[in-house]
Amino acid sequence: MLISEIRDYLERFFGNVELYGASGVVITGPAKIEEASEGHVSFVSNEKYLRYLEATKASLVIVGSSVGIGEYRTGTSFIRVSDPYTAFMLLLQKFAGPRVIAEPGIAPTAVIGKGVRIGRGVSIGEYAVIGDGCSVGDHSVIGSHSVLLRDVCVGSDTTVFPRVTCYEGTIIGSRVTIHSGSVLGSDGFGFAPQEDGSYLKIPQLGVVEIGDDCEIGANTTIDRATMGRTVIGKGVKIDNLVQIAHNCRIGDHTVIAAQAGISGSVTVGRYCMIGGQAGFAGHLELADRIQVAAKSGLSKSFSDAGITLRGTPAQPMRDQLKQEALVRGLGSMKERLEMLEAELRRIRQG
Amino acid sequence: MLISEIRDYLERFFGNVELYGASGVVITGPAKIEEASEGHVSFVSNEKYLRYLEATKASLVIVGSSVGIGEYRTGTSFIRVSDPYTAFMLLLQKFAGPRVIAEPGIAPTAVIGKGVRIGRGVSIGEYAVIGDGCSVGDHSVIGSHSVLLRDVCVGSDTTVFPRVTCYEGTIIGSRVTIHSGSVLGSDGFGFAPQEDGSYLKIPQLGVVEIGDDCEIGANTTIDRATMGRTVIGKGVKIDNLVQIAHNCRIGDHTVIAAQAGISGSVTVGRYCMIGGQAGFAGHLELADRIQVAAKSGLSKSFSDAGITLRGTPAQPMRDQLKQEALVRGLGSMKERLEMLEAELRRIRQG
Amino acid sequence: MLISEIRDYLERFFGNVELYGASGVVITGPAKIEEASEGHVSFVSNEKYLRYLEATKASLVIVGSSVGIGEYRTGTSFIRVSDPYTAFMLLLQKFAGPRVIAEPGIAPTAVIGKGVRIGRGVSIGEYAVIGDGCSVGDHSVIGSHSVLLRDVCVGSDTTVFPRVTCYEGTIIGSRVTIHSGSVLGSDGFGFAPQEDGSYLKIPQLGVVEIGDDCEIGANTTIDRATMGRTVIGKGVKIDNLVQIAHNCRIGDHTVIAAQAGISGSVTVGRYCMIGGQAGFAGHLELADRIQVAAKSGLSKSFSDAGITLRGTPAQPMRDQLKQEALVRGLGSMKERLEMLEAELRRIRQG
Repeated sequence: MLISEIRDYLERFFGNVELYGASGVVITGPAKIEEASEGHVSFVSNEKYLRYLEATKASLVIVGSSVGIGEYRTGTSFIRVSDPYTAFMLLLQKFAGPRVIAEPGIAPTAVIGKGVRIGRGVSIGEYAVIGDGCSVGDHSVIGSHSVLLRDVCVGSDTTVFPRVTCYEGTIIGSRVTIHSGSVLGSDGFGFAPQEDGSYLKIPQLGVVEIGDDCEIGANTTIDRATMGRTVIGKGVKIDNLVQIAHNCRIGDHTVIAAQAGISGSVTVGRYCMIGGQAGFAGHLELADRIQVAAKSGLSKSFSDAGITLRGTPAQPMRDQLKQEALVRGLGSMKERLEMLEAELRRIRQG
Repeated sequence: MLISEIRDYLERFFGNVELYGASGVVITGPAKIEEASEGHVSFVSNEKYLRYLEATKASLVIVGSSVGIGEYRTGTSFIRVSDPYTAFMLLLQKFAGPRVIAEPGIAPTAVIGKGVRIGRGVSIGEYAVIGDGCSVGDHSVIGSHSVLLRDVCVGSDTTVFPRVTCYEGTIIGSRVTIHSGSVLGSDGFGFAPQEDGSYLKIPQLGVVEIGDDCEIGANTTIDRATMGRTVIGKGVKIDNLVQIAHNCRIGDHTVIAAQAGISGSVTVGRYCMIGGQAGFAGHLELADRIQVAAKSGLSKSFSDAGITLRGTPAQPMRDQLKQEALVRGLGSMKERLEMLEAELRRIRQG
Repeated sequence: MLISEIRDYLERFFGNVELYGASGVVITGPAKIEEASEGHVSFVSNEKYLRYLEATKASLVIVGSSVGIGEYRTGTSFIRVSDPYTAFMLLLQKFAGPRVIAEPGIAPTAVIGKGVRIGRGVSIGEYAVIGDGCSVGDHSVIGSHSVLLRDVCVGSDTTVFPRVTCYEGTIIGSRVTIHSGSVLGSDGFGFAPQEDGSYLKIPQLGVVEIGDDCEIGANTTIDRATMGRTVIGKGVKIDNLVQIAHNCRIGDHTVIAAQAGISGSVTVGRYCMIGGQAGFAGHLELADRIQVAAKSGLSKSFSDAGITLRGTPAQPMRDQLKQEALVRGLGSMKERLEMLEAELRRIRQG
């Protein structure tokens, strides 16, 4: 790809794009500024990486408005855009090209049930098992060894990586990505205690619904609802090894980091950010745009949109930091207490 | 299913069942009281849902002894039983019907090893791999893509969902359910530190044994014993993404919530309840009926049956709550300390 | 195996091995000292197990230098070595024999892509899918149902258990063991927030590299780098359900216990020990030989080699234990504060 082609490509997104230096050089791929060599395109968006600019061997560097171009060596061209990070991402995607998860068409070893509807341009990988009554939308990919039990509905342009299980009735939107090892629609963890101390399984009759544009990480589990639906909203991004229990509702564009666990019937608002290893008790409600720090343990609902929570039990950031500071200061509190006691002894004796 | 048939069905379990209203109406399925429409059966067992009774469109509501039937609209029939929740569960199961995890019989693509014994009415799904010397009891189901390494023994009426791995020698009881992605019998995490700082793997020669009537969630891992058995007792219910390490013994009818982690050689009593994301250090012993709050970190054994533990390091609930209250009160303690200091200054200055 | 053969075998490793008692007895397998019966070999390395020696029915016991042989019954032979634990491990391995994960050769149902290089003595299990351009080194085993996407490189003498996924470009060293359900090379969790609150996926173009002699537990996830490599060093041992995010670097011979989670771009030194359920914020650096207690939450880097960290936020062990003691002492601090207040009241009232 020529530098001039990169400029033209970025102009489609940014309008105003300035090129400094040679435009006819061939760019073969992206690299970090400190590791780039000839033929690479790189970028600088953070001031702390400016120091690498002088010595970089990259043939092209994407920069923002604050970089003085004139100062650097002639072997490197520069493209200046308003947001060099996003520009570089677009180039990453461009260089990556389409990813082949399964060959086009239906692999001869795939098992397709009765009454399955398959759209145009669908790829179904080796040994995939598509149960009776499933549907797979146009241009979607079902990776090898993935299992869809009956009546699973997959939208269009969705990618299911190899070795994913969708239990019966799972509904997956369009432009969704589901990584390997994830299990959607497994039974909610519901058991009724009996008089003899044993448990009776509560039938789990609901389903899981994944909105458009979601991404679900590897080995994540999302349980079906007892009745009705466990709902993952549009554009939700879920990392690896996350647990989402039955009847949860995760609002649109919320992000959930690895190993977080959300108990049954929790409602999380839109645009929230849940940190890694955070845990939620059951039946809580979180307002929109709430941020939950990693490892926090939530034991109650929070209705103030946009707040940040931290600690176990979790409380608003300011309160939690104050409390943590008081705990750190306990040693000096104890010393002051001892001084007071000594002084009073002197007064008594005195 | 007619309302009269539902009454007859529940009478088998509860004996004394009273029906109010029409008995000839067809019920098509279950629903929550606040979402039910015509043809649905619902239930009210909790007082806070009583408010939905007036407006519900359900054709049948299961209630307990405290609800006054006369007050509600004529379009709804009522069945009164001693335990409406359990009654509704029985109906849920009835409406759900038998679940098809794999078609009856052995799928043509299943690979069956040498010397495998398969009982009557067994279903083995597409691409399942059953190793040499395995046995599968009557009416059990092995989901597609599940892999049993050699000498795995599965009881009767057990359901193994798709994409489960059982390592060699795993023993699974009867009426057990194992969800997708779980791994039973993987090697215990045992390594002997060598003088050069590297590790020598300790061979893991034991097995995993799962008792009758257990349920194991999705993507849960249970390691084989180094020698002997890792034992999951009868009726134990384990949620998703739980880790149970080598040589653990989990007592009968204990419940373990998602993402809990139990280190090697821990013994948990019977009828315990382990909260989500709780963690146990190795070699601990817990008495019967102990409850462990979510996110707790256990660093020692507890021999008092029936206590509740919480915190990291975990301690009995009362002590932990007292300690948490003291921490929350640190701000006011500090103020009181400052007032004392000020007063003593005044006294000094006299 | 005769006792004399066991002595000869151990002499290869320990040089100086003393045998007391009969040498012609056949040993059929290993057992714990308290459970051993005739024909078993057992060991005692820990003083607290000495009490079992008198009553053991083992035909052979491996002991260290501190045990007085003359005192025990004639039916038991003894072998004395410098390190009875390691000696017993070697015997465990000897009795276990080679483990059959997949039959020798390539299973007829395995799907092998174009341009795949397969070494001598390789086993590839039923339904394994090996993508285009992969290579598998001599004597390696790929378990049934494992999926290698394109261009995965596996060294020699490596064992991949059934149901493992390696995304495209994953590099796995020699003598590595990867347990069932693990996912190597899934996409890093990288999304750029857009002005409308939604997220744009950052392409994940890097790979995962696993060093020689590593062991990776069941259902563990290791994400590919955004660019470059996520690197697991040589001899690293990783337990079940661990999350390692994009661009991490784990130093040689580091051990990571179950359910630990390491965020993006973290660098962990060599010979570290990370406890179960510990969590790391992104971009941290840990020096060599650092120990992190179970459940700790690391929010900053630590450059002092060999220290132990604990707590959330984690701090050096000594500081953390001091702080925990102060918190436990809060009740008595409060009482002392109240006594001071009472005394001052008395002084005021004079």
